[in-house]
Amino acid sequence: MNIDSVEKGLVIDHIQAGKAMQIYQYLNLDKMDCSVAIIKNAKSKKTGKKDIIKIEDNITMDFKVLGFIDPNITINVIDNGVIIKKIKLELPSVIENVVKCKNPRCITSVEQEIVHKFKLTDKEKKIYRCVYCDTAYEQN
Amino acid sequence: MNIDSVEKGLVIDHIQAGKAMQIYQYLNLDKMDCSVAIIKNAKSKKTGKKDIIKIEDNITMDFKVLGFIDPNITINVIDNGVIIKKIKLELPSVIENVVKCKNPRCITSVEQEIVHKFKLTDKEKKIYRCVYCDTAYEQN
Repeated sequence: MNIDSVEKGLVIDHIQAGKAMQIYQYLNLDKMDCSVAIIKNAKSKKTGKKDIIKIEDNITMDFKVLGFIDPNITINVIDNGVIIKKIKLELPSVIENVVKCKNPRCITSVEQEIVHKFKLTDKEKKIYRCVYCDTAYEQN
Repeated sequence: MNIDSVEKGLVIDHIQAGKAMQIYQYLNLDKMDCSVAIIKNAKSKKTGKKDIIKIEDNITMDFKVLGFIDPNITINVIDNGVIIKKIKLELPSVIENVVKCKNPRCITSVEQEIVHKFKLTDKEKKIYRCVYCDTAYEQN
């Protein structure tokens, strides 16, 4: 199943199969008026299956967060039907207010209005730790 | 934005813009291994905007429930790239275990394991009432 090319917008490609919906939520695409296409379990030469999101609009967003969800994602910025920019993502070194610390004794669990902040402590194993209590965040 | 035709599967068309995700949840499409494409806010000649879902597989499902979500939906059953069946939906007269009664005093709110059952009492105004306590269900 293919979607024809976007005239102006973004193509978020090579999303791990099944993760598109999570990205859809993160980017608040449900609240947008522009055309959005989500293809789940599209055929991929590399990985067998992948997800793709196409957005028919220029949205400004924090691409770094997507790197946290799935660092293998590529983002193609399209104008006049041509890819004008290709963005390769990577694991961000710090993420703020994306996920919450699960330690019930962590200050972020007790106090409100504190920035939920995690640091990448092990790039190989993709381990993030809460900067306040050092608890590792477990990604599903 | 278009998606090329499905070889074998279903095309759920004329979904009210913004409602595709609700249908996606109802049909448990997130748990399926087949290719699924969701197009939100696609251009439509009739209504300006619409959502479309394409499923590259033959799934058995309760189409009636979709009529409750949006009676204007059409379902095209596709085989060998050709539409072999067109299903027009309508408001189902009875829905079971699709939505819950919001009346805290309703028996379905108090007792567990009771079938949540609503009857269509006003077709014009699309009003469904709980068969136990007569409370109207308000659709968003």
